[in-house]
Amino acid sequence: MINRLCVIGVGLIGGSLALALKRAGFVKEVVGCSRRETHLQQAVELGVIDRYETDMAKAVEGADLVFLSVPLGAMQSVMQAIKPGLAADTVITDGGSAKGCIVEDARAAFGALPEGLVPGHPIAGTEKSGVEAAFPDLYQDRRIIITPLETSDPEAVALVQAMWEAAGAHVEKMNVEHHDEVLAATSHLPHMLAFGLVDSLARMKDNDEIFRYAAGGFRDFTRIASSDPVMWRDICIHNQEALVKMMQRYKDDLNEIELAIGNGDGDLLLEIFTRAKESRDRFVDLMEGSSE
Amino acid sequence: MINRLCVIGVGLIGGSLALALKRAGFVKEVVGCSRRETHLQQAVELGVIDRYETDMAKAVEGADLVFLSVPLGAMQSVMQAIKPGLAADTVITDGGSAKGCIVEDARAAFGALPEGLVPGHPIAGTEKSGVEAAFPDLYQDRRIIITPLETSDPEAVALVQAMWEAAGAHVEKMNVEHHDEVLAATSHLPHMLAFGLVDSLARMKDNDEIFRYAAGGFRDFTRIASSDPVMWRDICIHNQEALVKMMQRYKDDLNEIELAIGNGDGDLLLEIFTRAKESRDRFVDLMEGSSE
Repeated sequence: MINRLCVIGVGLIGGSLALALKRAGFVKEVVGCSRRETHLQQAVELGVIDRYETDMAKAVEGADLVFLSVPLGAMQSVMQAIKPGLAADTVITDGGSAKGCIVEDARAAFGALPEGLVPGHPIAGTEKSGVEAAFPDLYQDRRIIITPLETSDPEAVALVQAMWEAAGAHVEKMNVEHHDEVLAATSHLPHMLAFGLVDSLARMKDNDEIFRYAAGGFRDFTRIASSDPVMWRDICIHNQEALVKMMQRYKDDLNEIELAIGNGDGDLLLEIFTRAKESRDRFVDLMEGSSE
Repeated sequence: MINRLCVIGVGLIGGSLALALKRAGFVKEVVGCSRRETHLQQAVELGVIDRYETDMAKAVEGADLVFLSVPLGAMQSVMQAIKPGLAADTVITDGGSAKGCIVEDARAAFGALPEGLVPGHPIAGTEKSGVEAAFPDLYQDRRIIITPLETSDPEAVALVQAMWEAAGAHVEKMNVEHHDEVLAATSHLPHMLAFGLVDSLARMKDNDEIFRYAAGGFRDFTRIASSDPVMWRDICIHNQEALVKMMQRYKDDLNEIELAIGNGDGDLLLEIFTRAKESRDRFVDLMEGSSE
């Protein structure tokens, strides 16, 4: 149970968490803080937050738990801004898509890592953004990875876990490095491939004609290339190491396919495609709530 | 209007064409031919074909139009097998995903290119296959590319076009080389990227755990990796040249992204992602019947 939750960055991610916790009766009061006051007014009107502060240090004052849902590129400056308002036992977590950079940012902003800091990452979201897109079921049956640090107070870890469970999510713990590798593989790399493909075709001559002959498979494949470019620039910059490693690994595997095509090696192609199809079909079974 | 249509390979593609043409009253009789007699019996029971022959040359006898919907790897031997039953004016078209190979196969099988040969490619399909998956609306409002050859009789071209229009499709003409390039870009390359990604992850240690943290975006992105491995092996082998060229081009573009990430060049990443997002959003608008 949280007396006062402070959400810094009241958009889809932060707003949906607030709505879910209110509905679950897990929070008494939600204070919001964002760059634009008009957004905060809208968030109050929508019932997402109870009140707002435009000053970050004031916003976190008296909060049991602070949820940072700002772009990765803004995390460090937000941490610096909230620092004067934090108590020694304020629990801090976030919704960023990379976790190593959160630890670095916290070290830079706070000097030492606060005991209340428990980084986290909800594996949820839609292509939409903004507080008007927020809805209380966003985290229902979704996985949330929390990455407790050596410095994390066990009570803070327990509160962050309980909060996500109250929002309907399944919580799993992982270390920071492993999180960043897993996400590079399953999310960041696919986004690079989709952005890269669409950009590659867009740069071809007669690209309108080319897109015209693309079918439904292309639409599914490139859906993630409609994601927010600023957010993805930030993720790339903040998960640089793990992502570059995955891209190099992927290129090696793609080279193998290209060589097999060039050599007309149908047996090797069939082996690769069959293994991929079996893995993908198994993955779909693994996904909860799958309805394919 | 077709008096007798012969469909060689009565699966999703050929079966759906037969159903669409019957419904439209564009065909009097449909004769089917496939490798397995049980499939043909099933096709008769489902009302997809009126009767069948197990001998290919017999099957095409007296047909006005022959539709070849067998895997690309089987086209040449099917052409050789139907040859004795063809009349001088039999119109022949197909549903293969690459067209240069059809011309080569026809040259090898028939000696000279028949005047009735008008290769085609319906940009339609589902992940399902087999005659039980056939339905008359498969081609409704879909694009069909036909690639008339210099040798093609204009009447044959007109009949193939009229047939697809009767099935509800929009017909566009293109030359063979251009078709193969456009399809390499919009379909064959994306399939390689999806197969490659899933296989790359499947070969990592702890791959079950990795797939567990993949979210909805990953599912959309990899849907095409659940496609039929045999069909895709055939497409790779039969559109080798255009596909390898596209893969090399794509790798150059992906390298640019990887370099930008490695260099922390946020401006370049933002430029690439923004251009990709704009192109992708524009492409969705271009697609007919779009409901995103």
